[in-house]
Amino acid sequence: MKNRIDLKNFNIRTDLVIDNEIQENNVKKKKINDNIQITTINVSDELSQELKRKPGNYITIEFTDVTNHEDKIEIENCLEQELRNLLKMKKISDDDSCLILGLGNRLSTADSLGPITLDKILVTRHLFVLKTQVKEGIRNVAALSPGVMANTGIETYDIITSLVKKITPNFLIVIDSLASSTIDRINRTIQITDTGIHPGSGIGNNRQEISMDTIGIPVIAIGVPTVVESSIIVSDTIDYIFKHLSYIKQHYDAHKLIVGPRNSKKYLDNIQSLNLSENEKKEISGILGTLDEEKKKELIYEVLNSIDYNLIVTPKEIDFLIDKLSEVISNAINKSLHNAVK
Amino acid sequence: MKNRIDLKNFNIRTDLVIDNEIQENNVKKKKINDNIQITTINVSDELSQELKRKPGNYITIEFTDVTNHEDKIEIENCLEQELRNLLKMKKISDDDSCLILGLGNRLSTADSLGPITLDKILVTRHLFVLKTQVKEGIRNVAALSPGVMANTGIETYDIITSLVKKITPNFLIVIDSLASSTIDRINRTIQITDTGIHPGSGIGNNRQEISMDTIGIPVIAIGVPTVVESSIIVSDTIDYIFKHLSYIKQHYDAHKLIVGPRNSKKYLDNIQSLNLSENEKKEISGILGTLDEEKKKELIYEVLNSIDYNLIVTPKEIDFLIDKLSEVISNAINKSLHNAVK
Amino acid sequence: MKNRIDLKNFNIRTDLVIDNEIQENNVKKKKINDNIQITTINVSDELSQELKRKPGNYITIEFTDVTNHEDKIEIENCLEQELRNLLKMKKISDDDSCLILGLGNRLSTADSLGPITLDKILVTRHLFVLKTQVKEGIRNVAALSPGVMANTGIETYDIITSLVKKITPNFLIVIDSLASSTIDRINRTIQITDTGIHPGSGIGNNRQEISMDTIGIPVIAIGVPTVVESSIIVSDTIDYIFKHLSYIKQHYDAHKLIVGPRNSKKYLDNIQSLNLSENEKKEISGILGTLDEEKKKELIYEVLNSIDYNLIVTPKEIDFLIDKLSEVISNAINKSLHNAVK
Amino acid sequence: MKNRIDLKNFNIRTDLVIDNEIQENNVKKKKINDNIQITTINVSDELSQELKRKPGNYITIEFTDVTNHEDKIEIENCLEQELRNLLKMKKISDDDSCLILGLGNRLSTADSLGPITLDKILVTRHLFVLKTQVKEGIRNVAALSPGVMANTGIETYDIITSLVKKITPNFLIVIDSLASSTIDRINRTIQITDTGIHPGSGIGNNRQEISMDTIGIPVIAIGVPTVVESSIIVSDTIDYIFKHLSYIKQHYDAHKLIVGPRNSKKYLDNIQSLNLSENEKKEISGILGTLDEEKKKELIYEVLNSIDYNLIVTPKEIDFLIDKLSEVISNAINKSLHNAVK
Repeated sequence: MKNRIDLKNFNIRTDLVIDNEIQENNVKKKKINDNIQITTINVSDELSQELKRKPGNYITIEFTDVTNHEDKIEIENCLEQELRNLLKMKKISDDDSCLILGLGNRLSTADSLGPITLDKILVTRHLFVLKTQVKEGIRNVAALSPGVMANTGIETYDIITSLVKKITPNFLIVIDSLASSTIDRINRTIQITDTGIHPGSGIGNNRQEISMDTIGIPVIAIGVPTVVESSIIVSDTIDYIFKHLSYIKQHYDAHKLIVGPRNSKKYLDNIQSLNLSENEKKEISGILGTLDEEKKKELIYEVLNSIDYNLIVTPKEIDFLIDKLSEVISNAINKSLHNAVK
Repeated sequence: MKNRIDLKNFNIRTDLVIDNEIQENNVKKKKINDNIQITTINVSDELSQELKRKPGNYITIEFTDVTNHEDKIEIENCLEQELRNLLKMKKISDDDSCLILGLGNRLSTADSLGPITLDKILVTRHLFVLKTQVKEGIRNVAALSPGVMANTGIETYDIITSLVKKITPNFLIVIDSLASSTIDRINRTIQITDTGIHPGSGIGNNRQEISMDTIGIPVIAIGVPTVVESSIIVSDTIDYIFKHLSYIKQHYDAHKLIVGPRNSKKYLDNIQSLNLSENEKKEISGILGTLDEEKKKELIYEVLNSIDYNLIVTPKEIDFLIDKLSEVISNAINKSLHNAVK
Repeated sequence: MKNRIDLKNFNIRTDLVIDNEIQENNVKKKKINDNIQITTINVSDELSQELKRKPGNYITIEFTDVTNHEDKIEIENCLEQELRNLLKMKKISDDDSCLILGLGNRLSTADSLGPITLDKILVTRHLFVLKTQVKEGIRNVAALSPGVMANTGIETYDIITSLVKKITPNFLIVIDSLASSTIDRINRTIQITDTGIHPGSGIGNNRQEISMDTIGIPVIAIGVPTVVESSIIVSDTIDYIFKHLSYIKQHYDAHKLIVGPRNSKKYLDNIQSLNLSENEKKEISGILGTLDEEKKKELIYEVLNSIDYNLIVTPKEIDFLIDKLSEVISNAINKSLHNAVK
Repeated sequence: MKNRIDLKNFNIRTDLVIDNEIQENNVKKKKINDNIQITTINVSDELSQELKRKPGNYITIEFTDVTNHEDKIEIENCLEQELRNLLKMKKISDDDSCLILGLGNRLSTADSLGPITLDKILVTRHLFVLKTQVKEGIRNVAALSPGVMANTGIETYDIITSLVKKITPNFLIVIDSLASSTIDRINRTIQITDTGIHPGSGIGNNRQEISMDTIGIPVIAIGVPTVVESSIIVSDTIDYIFKHLSYIKQHYDAHKLIVGPRNSKKYLDNIQSLNLSENEKKEISGILGTLDEEKKKELIYEVLNSIDYNLIVTPKEIDFLIDKLSEVISNAINKSLHNAVK
């Protein structure tokens, strides 16, 4: 009963972000405007062990609303710049050829970001192969949407590595939809890393990783969390309720739990920084409040899965969001790869 | 910040089901098999006041999984039969002409059930108008997808009533995506009623109702809840957690909150019927447990809206579900309207 | 056997262009660049009788390739300007409300220009109805895709007129795919007229016309020929063969019918202006050459229809062309209707 | 100017049919009903040289209308049976694994047959890899849509051969849209061969062939001609005009070229078998009539290309035809490959 949509199901990669609290000197935050912020984390070899994440660069562009026209242009510029930086850091030259992979399932809107973005990518490799005169400032770029294992019967890893062996690109860019691990990131972050990705979790072995380690060329991954498990929605919301109740107690009458409209931005900043004592939590929510984070999540997960209601969901506006996000990502890639594209 | 997708937003009609506890003699439950059940409620004029719902028939076909091939055929048969019954009850004869309306937005997957179903409807009115020889057992049927106000600028009610006045059908069938008011109904119920619908909530006045009362002909509404507010996911899950914890206390050690896998069906039946005392609730979840249902919902709604995270979401498999649901509904309509269609 | 695709067939409106030779003082030609040209014809009441076309303005924007980026922008500017001119001529003020109709069938690529264009139209009427504060320079605009009779069972004329009566716009814009009456216009012209259109030819009576005469408000029609009958391809090609052979005879050896590559533009201008004598035609093509234009067309039409090969066809690139053409038309409409849109 | 749609253009494979007149003992014709016929040609090694086609089996299923429900089921049965026969002839056992390739461009309706058919293919290879218990009568099947070179920058041949090397299937099935070489075959034939295909003609070298010779495993190609060059429409029509005029001369008055409606089927059989003398042709169509077949085609091709009007076209109903054809082909493949599928 768990996997109700067997044949068309999509494998889920969770998001690329590092949430762990790490020392501030490894994190750079850059505020573009009220709605857009970039966080850059460089995970050193030592830090890597501590965080249990691969060493490398993790960049997150956070934004409030990609459907806002002015913000959309700004997000695009940010992504272009971050990609240019990464290319430089990885010592990729203008003559190096690129293979771009759009992972995911075109027929499933929430999982279609990769293929849809690829439709708008400027592809040029065939011009180089055909020895056509190619304009100055145009790079050798190929692209493939390998599909998902449920539809191809083939591990995505196998399709990619056999093709890489054949056409020998100098580096890879991989675009993918991801599962969010918090409610505040869904369709509101673009995540970039040079540490590679795991395109399918079906079989669950290590060789599936696509990274410099496994295929010997730089791999830049671009991901957007487009779906989230219901259990995460519940877990995150209960945390916010704790903080909300605590906030109310401090600022208002304890018994007046619901108050009028608030300035959401300020309120949000306020309650996000609240830390509750164990006693406070217990008072507010009994046994629930006494569970540590891990246990609480496990409980919610178990309850929802037992009754088969732990749906993986996506915002109902997903069609329009995929449309805008694919424009942002394809434009930023086209501009950062080809100097001739403005 | 609330309405982030202004232009393409879709109006949401909540589901048509009656949840209130009502006397058993007004409710008929019919179990088709382990996965499918039909509930029929006739709301009399007296009952109407009590329930605050319009008098009429409310039929709900509940199922576990419409993508299961055998169940899909069974659901289709159930819907066909329920539609035939309603036609008979409303005294609609084989010669009466029908206008079918597919509400919603074709470009937004979760809201596209109406238009997509209409693509598969057998339309015949033009053959009658053209005085073509029409086969025995074929009814006069027209169909329209009026779109959504965000895309047309026109109230759906106005498009429908002006057309009804022009082509004067004998009865209407309206197909629509709905917002679920509980997590267990999303994409798992087809709801039918003869009490009419409110196609748009934008302006919020009464004349928008499409029903026998307002347009003078019978209106049969067919709806499927395809989306749900995050706050409902949270609220429903917290209820299940209460019940789960209480169940655990009764059956196991109170401190061992998480237990092994359970037979979900039996467990589900068990915990759904649990009723917790106030004291139990408080012990389990502190202040949260002391709130009555209404207050708890209000609190969750307020917290999520304050931080703009009360997303309306849809299961990630929605593309495949709409595909199957539109087949079920169109086939059932085609067969129940035209005796010549097998 | 004629109508092989009965249910989904689309009604075909032929193009809006005037081909008849008319006096030069009624025709204005304006060359924008080597690839784009605008022809404006004003048909006076007297001329109307002679040409058997309704009196009014007929504007044709001809272009070589809408997928060329620079030309696309230019075509858009031309269309915007022509629409502004027509609005002024029809004395339509900035406060007048508009209803835009996208005719055709979204599910049939070659007939989808109307609905696809509408997806990109800025719709605002609901803001005015809701008494929202609307930005300066924004007009009251509504939009509807009424579908095609094969899918709705309803005459498009009936849907439109009943809606016009209800929401009382000050003028209409109608967008439609057309059938070309010559091979050189397919996807290479945008045609604009203020004389109205006939949205469906199914029943073939006069009341179907949508125009100032029938509904009492100005009607601006925008059409692009996207399909052509095979018989027209053949007929036009035979004409070009006549001219080609004649050209060859004059410029080369009569027996060397096939010559090397030519500068197509110059050659095209040359042979399009050729007029063959009856004798020349007969020598070149025997009995075929002796038929007058009308008879020849009738013969080809009859032969192809007898064997059911008179397919209505569209260029294989139609998906990409509809995409670009819908952008051009929607952008031009949005800018010409709303002064605030740049 | 020739390639107006550069980036999205699709490579065209011409159809697989053998038209040359060959000895009757190599050709088997089987009439299924009035609307469906199967032609099977076995080209021996000797015959191969004469016909300039690779030795092997060429099977053509001809039909009048795939949108006719009864005929559609019959065509599906025919294709299933022909595929079963080929599997047996190639000594492919029930345990042999298959890779199915859907060539063409999903975004271009007329070229989308391969990818759209693949959406409906039962894929099972991952179940075998995951060592899931697989039902009796289910074969190991993988599937890939490699896209087109204009969108990937990669020769389709390279994608296919590198993947074949990696996952080592026992045989291939390749599905593709084709260009018709006569007007009577467009969307009215399914062509099957075991001689392999040339997936891209862009570079034009031999190594692009996908066949037993180049990759060492059996290759079954299934193709449907969905497009045709305008010059072929003209050329074929002129032939039919010759025959029509000759027919008229024999049966009616020579000067009455156009006659009333005819029983198209009988008439078609009649005129298709007509052979005109050189004198007749000259009388009917002057110089045009004196050209041999090859010269005539060359002339038409040259005239249309000179003026850039040699469009490659597809019937306007192509969306609905691709829908039906993809159902027929996917159903027939699923049934012939898996004994458990009925």
